[in-house]
Amino acid sequence: MPTKNKVVRLPRRSTGARRLVDLPDPFPMHLGGELQGAEIAYESWGELSPERDNGILLFTGLSPSAHACSSPEDPINGWWEYMIGPGHPIDTRKYFVVCVNSLGSCFGSTGPSSLDPATGEPYHTRFPVLTVEDIARSGRHLARRLGIERLHSVVGASLGGMSALAYAAMFPGEVDRLVSISAALHAAPFAIAVRSLQREIIRSDPAWQQGNYEPGEGPVSGMLMARKLGLLSYRSMDEWRHRFGRDVAPGTDFEENPFGIHFEVESYLDYNSRKFIGGFDANSYLYLSRAMDLFDLANHGRSMNNAVSRLGTKDNLVMGVESDYLFPPFQQQEMADRMRQAGRKVRYHCLPCQHGHDSFLVDSDQFGPVVADFFS
Amino acid sequence: MPTKNKVVRLPRRSTGARRLVDLPDPFPMHLGGELQGAEIAYESWGELSPERDNGILLFTGLSPSAHACSSPEDPINGWWEYMIGPGHPIDTRKYFVVCVNSLGSCFGSTGPSSLDPATGEPYHTRFPVLTVEDIARSGRHLARRLGIERLHSVVGASLGGMSALAYAAMFPGEVDRLVSISAALHAAPFAIAVRSLQREIIRSDPAWQQGNYEPGEGPVSGMLMARKLGLLSYRSMDEWRHRFGRDVAPGTDFEENPFGIHFEVESYLDYNSRKFIGGFDANSYLYLSRAMDLFDLANHGRSMNNAVSRLGTKDNLVMGVESDYLFPPFQQQEMADRMRQAGRKVRYHCLPCQHGHDSFLVDSDQFGPVVADFFS
Repeated sequence: MPTKNKVVRLPRRSTGARRLVDLPDPFPMHLGGELQGAEIAYESWGELSPERDNGILLFTGLSPSAHACSSPEDPINGWWEYMIGPGHPIDTRKYFVVCVNSLGSCFGSTGPSSLDPATGEPYHTRFPVLTVEDIARSGRHLARRLGIERLHSVVGASLGGMSALAYAAMFPGEVDRLVSISAALHAAPFAIAVRSLQREIIRSDPAWQQGNYEPGEGPVSGMLMARKLGLLSYRSMDEWRHRFGRDVAPGTDFEENPFGIHFEVESYLDYNSRKFIGGFDANSYLYLSRAMDLFDLANHGRSMNNAVSRLGTKDNLVMGVESDYLFPPFQQQEMADRMRQAGRKVRYHCLPCQHGHDSFLVDSDQFGPVVADFFS
Repeated sequence: MPTKNKVVRLPRRSTGARRLVDLPDPFPMHLGGELQGAEIAYESWGELSPERDNGILLFTGLSPSAHACSSPEDPINGWWEYMIGPGHPIDTRKYFVVCVNSLGSCFGSTGPSSLDPATGEPYHTRFPVLTVEDIARSGRHLARRLGIERLHSVVGASLGGMSALAYAAMFPGEVDRLVSISAALHAAPFAIAVRSLQREIIRSDPAWQQGNYEPGEGPVSGMLMARKLGLLSYRSMDEWRHRFGRDVAPGTDFEENPFGIHFEVESYLDYNSRKFIGGFDANSYLYLSRAMDLFDLANHGRSMNNAVSRLGTKDNLVMGVESDYLFPPFQQQEMADRMRQAGRKVRYHCLPCQHGHDSFLVDSDQFGPVVADFFS
């Protein structure tokens, strides 16, 4: 495995647009424990209206930072560049858009790699159990700090959609609209199994050291393989079939490494995974991944139907894609059905995208118009 | 990870029914290299007819031994017990059924864990590159040694179906019927990607030692995780959804291991993977896995259509299941279509099973009647 420890490092990203707010000190966690001196990182686009009624809070999936979109302070394209901006589906001439880096992540918000003020050492696995509810509540604190008592909308995809659902359930009088994209009321067993295996792969890398690796080091090989499993589950087999066929990757030496990279699809998986792991803290990955497994909206009521009936949003957009294995169509349909049964207004779209769970990141032609219509 | 190195050992299997035949010495391999003193293990059921026209050769998937069915010499149930036997779909009152342990495997046939006569040491990764064609040709030698010049049928599922296809392409005058179950004319990119990641997980386990582990030792943790990924891809998410929901496994300690086993689906995956890895050699796994990636029936002609047109079988049964990710329905349809276009007689069934790629092992109600009809 000659390339085992090679990591593709991305150009260092500008963080000129990143802002920080303090969380209440201490910040109690949903399943016990508390954080001292915790912070949340965010970026924003557009202006808050004098009436303070145009605020949109955007939660992210497991891996992105708050840099959803470029801005004069940070001109690098964000992870949802097509969706946000002047004249874009979420139009920043009209809305004040705030994207929050999830609590527990590693792009400015307090997480396992942050220093614990009590010890002066990184938390590592002494970070308390993280839940989607903690992410939602820290986002609500951010909104309040920005002067927003009542949000126009909460928006999120994947883990972000779960965070948006938790927000609407926990603070029912404080948000008018909900956009859930490729998320779920709770994780399905298949998705739990995939994430469980990803975590086991990371923890089995000796360089994980029970979570106590040095800053900048850690389980590179384990993260690489976990990311490959992620790409296998995010993207769809149909896409790969048309894209790669049985093409052989140039420059691979079958004699030297008969079990390694030979086909183009193997090379693609390797390159794209190396791109990712250069910037992501392994312990953050473990915590955020487990938070997705643990989330169950039903915990916010006497039953799932009761919890859904308590969502305070007056309009809801539920979107998913047909080729998503992790948050499959039946879960999208279930969410929309339960909202309707609870008397909620809901627009539902299961799109025929070919890119699996990650479609919302790339399929602007299909996602853009639906989101634009909702916000117009 | 307190259970990391615990392996569930199965009761030692009787091998009283296992027979061995020598391969030609040396046995040249399809992509170069040769084996000295190589053997093939097999089991058989029923009697060869005086006309020697009732022989069925059965190739296995990646992991099973030749013990497809019980017999007086080995009364333990085999991996295809429902399919083979007196009055069963492949009726041993009528047919002489021979199941071959694939060359390169570890249940009696020569493989990477066998001693290389040239050195007196195990081959490990000095075993030559293994292909489906080598498995087919060693099976053909076995048939000849049993006195069968012309087979009634070759039968196989998964890797075994590829081996059966290779057999029919390589020895077109020597087999009358073909049964391909959940196999493919060549591996799809998604399946290659899954297997590639399984191999990387195994090779990344320090206990793999570049393939040079001691007999009985080896990459237990890597094999365990590779098997879990296998189960994720073999079984279908719908099955798990109905079976597990969000049930929590009893006896798991979330406080002690927040990233480990908590949900029932995680416990299921762990238990079933530990069962498997106790008996399977890691290097055999690597070689057989890569052989599946490398197989392409098109190599047996000027084009895929040409290769299919050269299959000498006069009747063919192509079966697959709707919930199979690894050998998906489009590949089953493609195989049947190309056979028809080549003027071959073919019966095609894509079954609505819920058990994914492994359905042929468990869904006797759906597979049994179709196979029985073909052989009646």
